[in-house]
Amino acid sequence: MKWYKIFTPELKELIDTKNLKGLRLILGELHPADVVDVIKELEPTERTIAFRMLDKEKFAEVFSLFDPEEEEELLRQFTEHKVKEILLEMSPDDRTHLLDELPASVVNKLLKLLPPEEREEANILLNYPSESAGKVMTTEYVTLKTEMLVSEALERIRKTGPDRETIYTCYAIDENRILSGVVSLKDIILAKPDQKISQIMQENVHKVKTTDDQEKVAKVIQKYDYISLPVVDSENRLVGIITVDDILDIVEEEATEDFHKMAAMQLPEEKYFRSGVFKHVSGRVVWLFVLILASTISGKILQQYTVTLSSIITLAYFIPMLTGAGGNTGSQSSTLVIRAMATGELMLSQWLKVLWREICAGFLLGLALGGTAFIIATVFLRDIKLGITVGISVATVVLVGNIGGATAPLIFRCFRIDPAMVSAPLITTILDVTGIIIYFEIAKRILSI
Amino acid sequence: MKWYKIFTPELKELIDTKNLKGLRLILGELHPADVVDVIKELEPTERTIAFRMLDKEKFAEVFSLFDPEEEEELLRQFTEHKVKEILLEMSPDDRTHLLDELPASVVNKLLKLLPPEEREEANILLNYPSESAGKVMTTEYVTLKTEMLVSEALERIRKTGPDRETIYTCYAIDENRILSGVVSLKDIILAKPDQKISQIMQENVHKVKTTDDQEKVAKVIQKYDYISLPVVDSENRLVGIITVDDILDIVEEEATEDFHKMAAMQLPEEKYFRSGVFKHVSGRVVWLFVLILASTISGKILQQYTVTLSSIITLAYFIPMLTGAGGNTGSQSSTLVIRAMATGELMLSQWLKVLWREICAGFLLGLALGGTAFIIATVFLRDIKLGITVGISVATVVLVGNIGGATAPLIFRCFRIDPAMVSAPLITTILDVTGIIIYFEIAKRILSI
Repeated sequence: MKWYKIFTPELKELIDTKNLKGLRLILGELHPADVVDVIKELEPTERTIAFRMLDKEKFAEVFSLFDPEEEEELLRQFTEHKVKEILLEMSPDDRTHLLDELPASVVNKLLKLLPPEEREEANILLNYPSESAGKVMTTEYVTLKTEMLVSEALERIRKTGPDRETIYTCYAIDENRILSGVVSLKDIILAKPDQKISQIMQENVHKVKTTDDQEKVAKVIQKYDYISLPVVDSENRLVGIITVDDILDIVEEEATEDFHKMAAMQLPEEKYFRSGVFKHVSGRVVWLFVLILASTISGKILQQYTVTLSSIITLAYFIPMLTGAGGNTGSQSSTLVIRAMATGELMLSQWLKVLWREICAGFLLGLALGGTAFIIATVFLRDIKLGITVGISVATVVLVGNIGGATAPLIFRCFRIDPAMVSAPLITTILDVTGIIIYFEIAKRILSI
Repeated sequence: MKWYKIFTPELKELIDTKNLKGLRLILGELHPADVVDVIKELEPTERTIAFRMLDKEKFAEVFSLFDPEEEEELLRQFTEHKVKEILLEMSPDDRTHLLDELPASVVNKLLKLLPPEEREEANILLNYPSESAGKVMTTEYVTLKTEMLVSEALERIRKTGPDRETIYTCYAIDENRILSGVVSLKDIILAKPDQKISQIMQENVHKVKTTDDQEKVAKVIQKYDYISLPVVDSENRLVGIITVDDILDIVEEEATEDFHKMAAMQLPEEKYFRSGVFKHVSGRVVWLFVLILASTISGKILQQYTVTLSSIITLAYFIPMLTGAGGNTGSQSSTLVIRAMATGELMLSQWLKVLWREICAGFLLGLALGGTAFIIATVFLRDIKLGITVGISVATVVLVGNIGGATAPLIFRCFRIDPAMVSAPLITTILDVTGIIIYFEIAKRILSI
């Protein structure tokens, strides 16, 4: 049981008995992420009361933790004044995330509520390409000047810090907002008060462009263990930062995207319950459609072997084993390679090493599985010649499947297609066709049909 | 091209011309993660020279960024004095990570190099279960006392901070090391110098136990956007912290683990190139073996329909389409459900909602794909009765596959088995058998064989 379920009855009672002071106290103590969990357990009317007990800062924080669909729903229930307050209090990256999911007409109405300056900023952020650094960055960071003393810098951090996303990394900029260095709060704290920022700052700054993909941002933060990363525009001016807590969500999002691609789907951004059944189905049916057409090829090929098949009908029994062995081996080796490429361990340039490794592995796997298949088929049919046919076929299909599965992601990457598009069903379907051809060709020769 | 490849010739020249001062300067400027990339490009003799140019602190940092296998290799090349220096400089979590991968005999030799206190600590950390909070935590954090003034706390942070993993979250403990509160450096900076720590600290501290799984740690940090999380022992004493940068690696590791399970493998911890070919193969063969045995069942079932099959041999042409459609639909729906469970979006208690959703989706998908199959089969064979047989079979198999794929992870979770174990090949193989039975039973009825 989740802890907040213990909490809910208590809150409900406070609401029932109109003990608003107690309610305010408890909600004030809770972390915004916990407030969300608790509020989701309440009835709509109770929810409204609970919302009203939050101060506007916490209100905005709690609000931004809901899913965009739920946020849209909530916005409709609030007064215009409240909506404006929330929009102003939300951090710019959370606001972009919300506006990005809303229909254009609603966005326009909401933007009109903002003062000109905020409206312009929101508009700029909204116009960056999706999944780009510009789209996920926040504009609330601490800037310093290079000629500032450490004591002055601390003073500035104290003044501007409270409503910044992070104060642990500060950015030194010149009069044109060009990024000239980065300094951590740790370095500031450990430095002498009369040192200059230019003396303690790091000048070689890792930064990303607004148009860079969020996956690149995640890789940089992960590699260098940063807490935040600066984002610059095409003229090298500092326009935002991305913090590590957003990166955690991105890493998970990207992994989910790869997962879905591997299962042959085009539902990268949706959460499971978020999309309606029709959208859910339409995202899946395209690929299933392609795959069912592809499997027609297997049928066409089987038709060509009608003579072979009808003279020895028992050959049909092993079609599932043959296609299964190839498909399973192939999807294993492609998963290993796709994943190693996604985490950055494996580069395209290492294709020869991968090929050699999977040829060796394929031989060993083929030997083991072909041997097993030979024994099964011989015992099953009491016919050693058929057993040999099945055994050799399985061994060959496993070898081919293993090499094909491992090289397909490399070939895709070579043509600049995302390797994760080499989905398990795609590999399986291709190897079905290959497997059937190999099987019947070997059968024709060994059984001299 | 990676940027460090531009860098390598310059470094090589500095080494060739014995310009050690220049070399030291450049390596000193580079981030440890970049030093690793550059050093990997050098020849072994050049490497030794480059290593010697690093001061001992950076040396330890660079060293801990290599893979454990490479670390083991490097350790063999260093003098005993150097090894001792590295071990002492490494942060406790990096050291545990290294020792954990080495053979016991080497570990014992290395531990003997450490002073008693460090040795004991290393031993304790090594003995936590693998993938537990204790195994990944570090013991280098800043502790404060609740009665300290903010100014005193800052003084203490300045003194103890330099060699701590993070100073951005500090932990207030009592005389028994019981954790009594947590205070961020932000709060300390923004507070007045004469305030007491007890006044500004957060008393409701989220913490994990040493034995908690690292996945739980990742979920807490992700939910609350923490920079670090305290780890306590069974008596609630603070024994370590886990920082967000380690969590990034854990999130990726866990996603890889789920990926590999889905492709039916037991290679959770290995990187692609890390394991030898034999180990690589042995990790994969077990599952392939199980799957090939399972596919024998398909053969056995086909055997039962020999009469049906030999009277209308054309039925065989559609076996790959039938099994494919079921398997693909099932692996799609299971992927969606597994992923939603892994990210915490979907709970076991929502099984009814999932079931209903996938029944609806299955009907729609079955209608679309069954219709397609009917058209293909009718055109292909010019026989409307066979077309109807194939169409109805595909529709039924898709519906069954969709429901089966979505509920299997839920059933697994119910029996406390990791849902990610519902691998695509497993689903495919089970649905192969089901598909064949459905197909031939429908065929027998419609074609009255």
